[in-house]
Amino acid sequence: MKLIFEQSDLQKSVNISMKAISSSTTMPILECIMIDATAGEIKFISNDMELGIETIVPGEIVEKGSIALPAKTFSEIVKSLPNSTVTVETNEHMTAAITCEKAHFEIPGKPGDEFAYLPVVERDDSVKMTQFSLRQIINQTLFSVGENVGGNKALTGELFKIENGRLQVVSLDSHRVSIRNLGLGTECPDVSVIIPGKTLGEISRLLTGGLEDTVTVYFAKNYVIFEFDCTMVLSRLLEGRFFDVGQLLINDYSTKVEINKQNLVQCIGRASLLVRESDKVPVIFNISDDVVSLSADTAMGSMKEDLEIHKEGKDLVIGFNPKFMIDALRVIDEETITMYFLSSVAPCFIKNDEEGYNYIILPVNIGR
Amino acid sequence: MKLIFEQSDLQKSVNISMKAISSSTTMPILECIMIDATAGEIKFISNDMELGIETIVPGEIVEKGSIALPAKTFSEIVKSLPNSTVTVETNEHMTAAITCEKAHFEIPGKPGDEFAYLPVVERDDSVKMTQFSLRQIINQTLFSVGENVGGNKALTGELFKIENGRLQVVSLDSHRVSIRNLGLGTECPDVSVIIPGKTLGEISRLLTGGLEDTVTVYFAKNYVIFEFDCTMVLSRLLEGRFFDVGQLLINDYSTKVEINKQNLVQCIGRASLLVRESDKVPVIFNISDDVVSLSADTAMGSMKEDLEIHKEGKDLVIGFNPKFMIDALRVIDEETITMYFLSSVAPCFIKNDEEGYNYIILPVNIGR
Repeated sequence: MKLIFEQSDLQKSVNISMKAISSSTTMPILECIMIDATAGEIKFISNDMELGIETIVPGEIVEKGSIALPAKTFSEIVKSLPNSTVTVETNEHMTAAITCEKAHFEIPGKPGDEFAYLPVVERDDSVKMTQFSLRQIINQTLFSVGENVGGNKALTGELFKIENGRLQVVSLDSHRVSIRNLGLGTECPDVSVIIPGKTLGEISRLLTGGLEDTVTVYFAKNYVIFEFDCTMVLSRLLEGRFFDVGQLLINDYSTKVEINKQNLVQCIGRASLLVRESDKVPVIFNISDDVVSLSADTAMGSMKEDLEIHKEGKDLVIGFNPKFMIDALRVIDEETITMYFLSSVAPCFIKNDEEGYNYIILPVNIGR
Repeated sequence: MKLIFEQSDLQKSVNISMKAISSSTTMPILECIMIDATAGEIKFISNDMELGIETIVPGEIVEKGSIALPAKTFSEIVKSLPNSTVTVETNEHMTAAITCEKAHFEIPGKPGDEFAYLPVVERDDSVKMTQFSLRQIINQTLFSVGENVGGNKALTGELFKIENGRLQVVSLDSHRVSIRNLGLGTECPDVSVIIPGKTLGEISRLLTGGLEDTVTVYFAKNYVIFEFDCTMVLSRLLEGRFFDVGQLLINDYSTKVEINKQNLVQCIGRASLLVRESDKVPVIFNISDDVVSLSADTAMGSMKEDLEIHKEGKDLVIGFNPKFMIDALRVIDEETITMYFLSSVAPCFIKNDEEGYNYIILPVNIGR
């Protein structure tokens, strides 16, 4: 095999492939990037058995062939090369010679037949959206994906549910729920799948395109496929039942507060300086007419700060883990947000009128 | 005590004080910044018993007094405040109230009498230089300060030696020596002291000024003092004998090589991709007429690259730990450097004609 690349193309493709390289595997072949130039194009394939990536690399095939190269070494070598032409050539001992200007590397490779190629999946249902939208909706929900506790692996993923041309993405852990809705505006199939949080994290990092660049998502039995630019990412779906959030979505409230988001974030930030994660001391929201007074009181000291609000309904005193509040507020773009409360022991809803988002946060019991 | 500051002034001064706050101490008072406003000015004092910092803070004294505040909490609070007026006021229970706009913090302090004030040191000999020069000369030598092994604590510091108006700074570990010379150009005392590496690291971070800003260095019995802007840093000196580098400084050589520094750095960088720190595999320099051929050969693969040089003297094959070479090359500003070799088992000298610097690196024995 003999291939010729531009260093910049090669580096970009290697970076993409690295996202599906397992750092801790008992199968050394999974630490490799598979270079497949047996047909008319050059493909890099990587597969950590949960996530698989196939990307087409611009380059010239002087001699067809394939080889699996140790991903980390190959990636570091490519990164270190000057922005020039790079030749990758293999010999009969499965050694790859990488040459760029005067630099010459030789690294041991493996034959391609050991490699775990990606399964061929039937592409039934699909939706198309902008890379920007998908990246956004992932980043706006991924932070509250649960950890694998209690055996329900489904909660380590996000629910992607399409109904009547509307995508709803839900993630939740034991303290909070994040819901984002997105109108897809095209003829879409009805779908309900659970995509692993790890997959979505990598997808959000790979989707660097904007509003003009699209990504197609294919839903198949046990798999989801993301196709964009010259890259195809395949991931297993999670099995199991996702928590039914419908039962949580009540529209009843006794206190409604409108508040400047930026001021609230900064104020909670100051209050949480005195709260160590391990302390589990809440930040107290004392809501009265026109003012919410935030306070925290720990061994390190105490803090109090008033913020102007617009309030409807009853006064209320309620406590929150400051981290959960800030996580949700950070991914909301609006300048002014609206919070709905029922009582000091019922969850708080941060949502907008269009129901584009709904962040539900459980309070900390402060015994009032 | 009641003091009023601008948040930006306060934050700057707290940042300076934090450099002498010990993160692991058995004396809780050393985790505090001492605020002393008993006289006509506001001083922040911090002291980790090796390094002491006293800085004068711009601000208004409404009521005189002093208090020691937990440094980390105080620093985080100050950082979190908006850019506005900050009031720090103490009560009879040694609680400090910190108020800025609507934010109000209370943190417990300690009376000043427990605090370890800095010793009063007689300021005998002194030299003045630009902050830029001192910061440079520290950064150009600090990387080869030895670790505390074998009991000679002196080698965890740098030799500062002034003779005939010329400052020589030397650091060394078991593999290399870094020497920088600087003409002070003024009437200077003759001095020879060993300053702890940790002190110099903090000084280099504190000296943010340029060529117009000066720093005065006072040498006293057991102590050195750096005075700049509104800040005074006092450090213990290290006792013991510093290694006499004079015996190493031979001008004899059998091979002299002129080479482009940037190319050499990049090439060593590429070679070292295949060398794990733990392997102790050297990068081989094969020096012949007009060309040095760098190579490395490890379990991960092999690498070879030729660089153009201008050579005088014999051909030579010699091996180096790539990290030591790169450390030295990184702090040399010249575009072209000159390397002097005697044999494959003798140290390599990288120095310039004006003897502004001399980096001495021991080779790795490659058995040739």
